[in-house]
Amino acid sequence: MIEKNESVKRLLQVGIALSSVENLDTLLDLILKEAQELMGCDGASIFLLENDKLVFKAMRSGTYFKMWGEDKTRATFKTFEMPLTKNSIAGYVAITASALNIPDVSQIPAGEQYRYDPTFDEKYGYRTVSLLVMPIKNKKNQVLGVLEMINAIENDKVTKFNGEDMEIAESFSSQAGVAIQNTSLTEQLREANFDTIFRLSVAAEYRDKETSNHIKRVSYYARLIADKLRYCSEDCSLIFWAAPMHDIGKLGIPDAILQKPGPLDPEERKIMEKHSVIGAKVLKDSKVPVILKSKVVALAHHEKYDGTGYPMKLKGNAIPVEGRLVAIADVFDALTSKRVYKAQMPEEQALKIMRESRGTHFDPEMLDCFLGSMADVREIRDKFEDKPEDFDKLKDVGSEDLNELLK
Amino acid sequence: MIEKNESVKRLLQVGIALSSVENLDTLLDLILKEAQELMGCDGASIFLLENDKLVFKAMRSGTYFKMWGEDKTRATFKTFEMPLTKNSIAGYVAITASALNIPDVSQIPAGEQYRYDPTFDEKYGYRTVSLLVMPIKNKKNQVLGVLEMINAIENDKVTKFNGEDMEIAESFSSQAGVAIQNTSLTEQLREANFDTIFRLSVAAEYRDKETSNHIKRVSYYARLIADKLRYCSEDCSLIFWAAPMHDIGKLGIPDAILQKPGPLDPEERKIMEKHSVIGAKVLKDSKVPVILKSKVVALAHHEKYDGTGYPMKLKGNAIPVEGRLVAIADVFDALTSKRVYKAQMPEEQALKIMRESRGTHFDPEMLDCFLGSMADVREIRDKFEDKPEDFDKLKDVGSEDLNELLK
Repeated sequence: MIEKNESVKRLLQVGIALSSVENLDTLLDLILKEAQELMGCDGASIFLLENDKLVFKAMRSGTYFKMWGEDKTRATFKTFEMPLTKNSIAGYVAITASALNIPDVSQIPAGEQYRYDPTFDEKYGYRTVSLLVMPIKNKKNQVLGVLEMINAIENDKVTKFNGEDMEIAESFSSQAGVAIQNTSLTEQLREANFDTIFRLSVAAEYRDKETSNHIKRVSYYARLIADKLRYCSEDCSLIFWAAPMHDIGKLGIPDAILQKPGPLDPEERKIMEKHSVIGAKVLKDSKVPVILKSKVVALAHHEKYDGTGYPMKLKGNAIPVEGRLVAIADVFDALTSKRVYKAQMPEEQALKIMRESRGTHFDPEMLDCFLGSMADVREIRDKFEDKPEDFDKLKDVGSEDLNELLK
Repeated sequence: MIEKNESVKRLLQVGIALSSVENLDTLLDLILKEAQELMGCDGASIFLLENDKLVFKAMRSGTYFKMWGEDKTRATFKTFEMPLTKNSIAGYVAITASALNIPDVSQIPAGEQYRYDPTFDEKYGYRTVSLLVMPIKNKKNQVLGVLEMINAIENDKVTKFNGEDMEIAESFSSQAGVAIQNTSLTEQLREANFDTIFRLSVAAEYRDKETSNHIKRVSYYARLIADKLRYCSEDCSLIFWAAPMHDIGKLGIPDAILQKPGPLDPEERKIMEKHSVIGAKVLKDSKVPVILKSKVVALAHHEKYDGTGYPMKLKGNAIPVEGRLVAIADVFDALTSKRVYKAQMPEEQALKIMRESRGTHFDPEMLDCFLGSMADVREIRDKFEDKPEDFDKLKDVGSEDLNELLK
């Protein structure tokens, strides 16, 4: 337990530390770690409110970590949901929006609405005595969740939490609340952007013979190769979110060519090939990293390693990395997918074609990496397999429940 | 000037307050206000690094605010750019990433690289004496900008900043740095989402007779009405960003109908009208507010107030607000825009048609509001006027500098 004056200074640093975390899971773990240190307690856990339920999100425990290690502890205390009622301690704190300091959970007066649930203690032989349970609120005083601190320790003995702990815990949970709110907002905004990209990419393929699963598979294959090549996680994400827009330029290709059943004649092919440039034009001049990456993917995903591709006839490493990655993903998916006009090609035959194009169409190192990851590739393919109804995109228009859509 | 112990506690609250601001301008002003109070100084100003330049972003000043009021002061000290060199005080601090405490700017030793620029003081009769200038850094210790505190005040007299001020200023600028970083990230993510929405909406109209300016004008018109009807700013923004996707469902309409030069026959019209339902289907089942709003706009923007629209023949207030708003914006823009096949209609004629549809096609209250804002409407129309080249979307494909696009 840190001295009081020190702890206020410490809280200042903690505030800055919490504000610097962009990922919610990392943030929650940091909150628990700081709570343990600031309050000098054995364990801490955190619940967040989601859809009017309390969701157990994360925990840390000196005792369990010592006994089992972190991994086993986390695997044991997995996320679970609780109804939001005053019967549980966390629920009580969330509903009343005020803290509970319980010296001994076995001595909760009979008149209280909340009860301690000893299930975990009994199952694993832990003995919870004292609890300090704080509501986590955002700046508008809305409750976001609950922070439980478990078993205050003084001189190696379990004791109760005191008034000073309460004071520190209050400041700390305010900081935690603002940090959680900010990080959730950031995550929501990222998700919003990806949702938009994906939906509109799917929409753009409405006229095409492709399905929305095609877009998903290509994104996952491309990220898989990037990941296996040990690109940093930010680059892997960028490629994943840029890949869906590779064919966005097909919006500029007339139906007569895009939907022609047979092979294209040379003049038609020339027009069709313009989709890479059209896509790049649609996406140019953005300040947004994922859009800029998409532009490069759109422009370069039909280049070939030996310089015989289009539109620029780039050769080898002159082709941007993301273009070479998506080329492999896109061709493999085209070969192994059912289309309205063709059956699925057996995997072995597709792989033979891919291998024959090593160093001509495809970057050899990337291709080797892809071919060496077939277990993952198959998993992706199976997860996003096309079903017959995926091909009849407009079949159902008119039969849906419009009142449902209006909501 | 606040007592030291108090100021540490105060810093705790300040940290939480700074972390709660989502808008960068609001945040910068709050930082300056807190800096004035914490440090007990007359003024404060803030520069941010943008593209290797120092950009003057905001200021507060006890003296100027008293003399001129806030508005005139802000109008006088507008944003300006400075090169990033060690010759200026702010530049020196930004480059060296360490604080400067200058007791009197008129006594800067000749050996120092930086000089005080007295231009503003001389112009407006202010006398800057002491300066405390802090680098603002993010968690990775990258300099984001510079915070200048001007003229420490003690017992109503200008004095120099002391060591304690320095200590507080250091904690405070760390907090400010993290808050600025977070808020900038949030703003970038919002911008990213809007950029994506807008680009792909424009792309979706590639095959259409519309231009990208049409999408912009409709968004601005719709937001104008919402704003005049005093909807909250969040709702105004949502409508603004949902409006671009109103015709996204046209992706599902064949060229033969979408691009038919003459009027559509009843069968073709029936297919064309499906674009509202197709759009809603593309956008359904999202968790993202702007996408959900877009879905409603797509579905409902062809409903009419008297119940004769499509696809649901909704009547009056049963038509969602955003559908009624976009209907006015979309029809007005269609009437007053040049198209490849028609000239621009004179405004008075368009307004006559709009007025005749009051209560039949359009919500009367919304229409009155729109017609009452013609000065703003004209400004929007002029700002996003179509130029002849806007209609030849595919004319230039093939002539662009592909190396430029590849960057």
